[in-house]
Amino acid sequence: MNYIKAFAPATVANVACGFDIFGFAVDEPGDVVELRRRAEPGIVISDITGDGGRLPRDSARNAVTVVMLRLLEHLGNTEFGGEVILHKNMPLGSGMGSSSASAVAGVYALNEMLGQPLTRQQLLPFAMEGERIACGSAHADNVGPALMGGFLVVRSYQPLDVFQIPVPEELYCTLVNPDIEVNTKDARFILRNEVSLKNAISQMGNVAGLIAGLMQEDYDLISRSMVDVIVEPIRAILIPEFNEVKQVAIAHGALGCSISGAGPSMFTLSKGRETAEQVGKAMQETFATAGIESNAYVSAINRQGPKVLEFN
Amino acid sequence: MNYIKAFAPATVANVACGFDIFGFAVDEPGDVVELRRRAEPGIVISDITGDGGRLPRDSARNAVTVVMLRLLEHLGNTEFGGEVILHKNMPLGSGMGSSSASAVAGVYALNEMLGQPLTRQQLLPFAMEGERIACGSAHADNVGPALMGGFLVVRSYQPLDVFQIPVPEELYCTLVNPDIEVNTKDARFILRNEVSLKNAISQMGNVAGLIAGLMQEDYDLISRSMVDVIVEPIRAILIPEFNEVKQVAIAHGALGCSISGAGPSMFTLSKGRETAEQVGKAMQETFATAGIESNAYVSAINRQGPKVLEFN
Repeated sequence: MNYIKAFAPATVANVACGFDIFGFAVDEPGDVVELRRRAEPGIVISDITGDGGRLPRDSARNAVTVVMLRLLEHLGNTEFGGEVILHKNMPLGSGMGSSSASAVAGVYALNEMLGQPLTRQQLLPFAMEGERIACGSAHADNVGPALMGGFLVVRSYQPLDVFQIPVPEELYCTLVNPDIEVNTKDARFILRNEVSLKNAISQMGNVAGLIAGLMQEDYDLISRSMVDVIVEPIRAILIPEFNEVKQVAIAHGALGCSISGAGPSMFTLSKGRETAEQVGKAMQETFATAGIESNAYVSAINRQGPKVLEFN
Repeated sequence: MNYIKAFAPATVANVACGFDIFGFAVDEPGDVVELRRRAEPGIVISDITGDGGRLPRDSARNAVTVVMLRLLEHLGNTEFGGEVILHKNMPLGSGMGSSSASAVAGVYALNEMLGQPLTRQQLLPFAMEGERIACGSAHADNVGPALMGGFLVVRSYQPLDVFQIPVPEELYCTLVNPDIEVNTKDARFILRNEVSLKNAISQMGNVAGLIAGLMQEDYDLISRSMVDVIVEPIRAILIPEFNEVKQVAIAHGALGCSISGAGPSMFTLSKGRETAEQVGKAMQETFATAGIESNAYVSAINRQGPKVLEFN
């Protein structure tokens, strides 16, 4: 294989109650990486589109290429030479797992080109390194589902232990990205290091409820469990119109609504595509009333994760 | 119906990671209530066996009869007269849901005698009142499974929202009650009111893992998820030989081992009755080496909850 073009999906991390432990992949948006062999060893970035010139072009500093370099290092491969073009199809700092989509597309493309020396699960620690570079902490709730698809749970970080759970066929996500920017580092910084035992118990109850609701296709339990008493109350202040948009989403039939990752994107889960689309429209209108433009994406939970678009 | 004799089971609350939100019922031990109609309105206690004289005989102060009186009050029934005999088949302050087994047996017996005016789920708030009287806080993780059977999750206390999840057929519990006493009020008192966000995240991961493991019959995931970083490290200091007993249980094949409720009883989950029995024997021997006598009980998860033993 001399050339490969690969896609990796956006992801919704936290999913209301599951801070740092829940995430799922969506069908769109997603980033695309083109990787072409070249004679000289090492990996260079020849172009990045869609980032407005904001991402580093130095392959030692860009999360996409850093994870590829780490993979080569791990494999003891000092011969490989590659040239990367990254197509950013979502804004940076959007809360939709932008950096993880790029890193996963990159490491997945390279692993495919090399003949799949590692499984997807084995690629996870490399993709997590990309998160450390992009936002200062090697969390797995975006890269996990971006790499493996579906709804992913991070049971433990040390040692790393992730698993997928089945979700209802009719479950649809609406992702709305308002045209404002929140830096993930800042969004983590404003969190408190301690939580009350009472809130921890409440959050645990909702974590248990969301898992059981998803696995049993109990939409009512899913809805009751989409409650975050720890992170959302703090981060919501960074998102103008958060309460209004959430209210309108619920009023239009969403099972629940919260912040996607560190925000400012907001997500909902709904039963059925039609409801999810109406919810998205209503959310966008509410942002628009406050003079905020937004993009909306509706999709089922993406069960596939990254995929090859082209190769030769 | 003039006479009824009812049984309600012991329960394991918390189940390692699920402080205040998880509980399951076992087949034995359990408490028995005899209720006999009498002409005069009101409820009196005519005898209590097995408590060494420690429980109040005043029906306005004993959890068993208080919940029955509350039920009559709720039903607007001022006519009913009953005489109660309570048979305690487990020690007080054992961590096996002793007070909740009594309260559930009482309220269940009365509801049966009155022709089931309320469903089991509707009886839950009354049984919880018994917990408030017995240990100062109206938690539901013992009375819930004692009343409804199976493995119960308390998603929320306000409003009260509980649900059951399926558990593997081959899952067996070993309950070992060492001959020492811990007061539940004290055991709650030594807990901190705040937990680190890091520990809360870790606990949430294990809560998600235990639910998914039980529902998917994934014994390995159940085992990895039976970890409590919030409560066990604090309460274990109240139980002599805790670490040794836990180690020996795991070494003999238990999936996991932690404190049952507020302790001092310890419980394990195992795959298969034989393993659960070997684990119990090894745990008892370890307590015995330190001069501590104990009782051990092995049973599958009790799916039935309370039951009628006799009536006429």
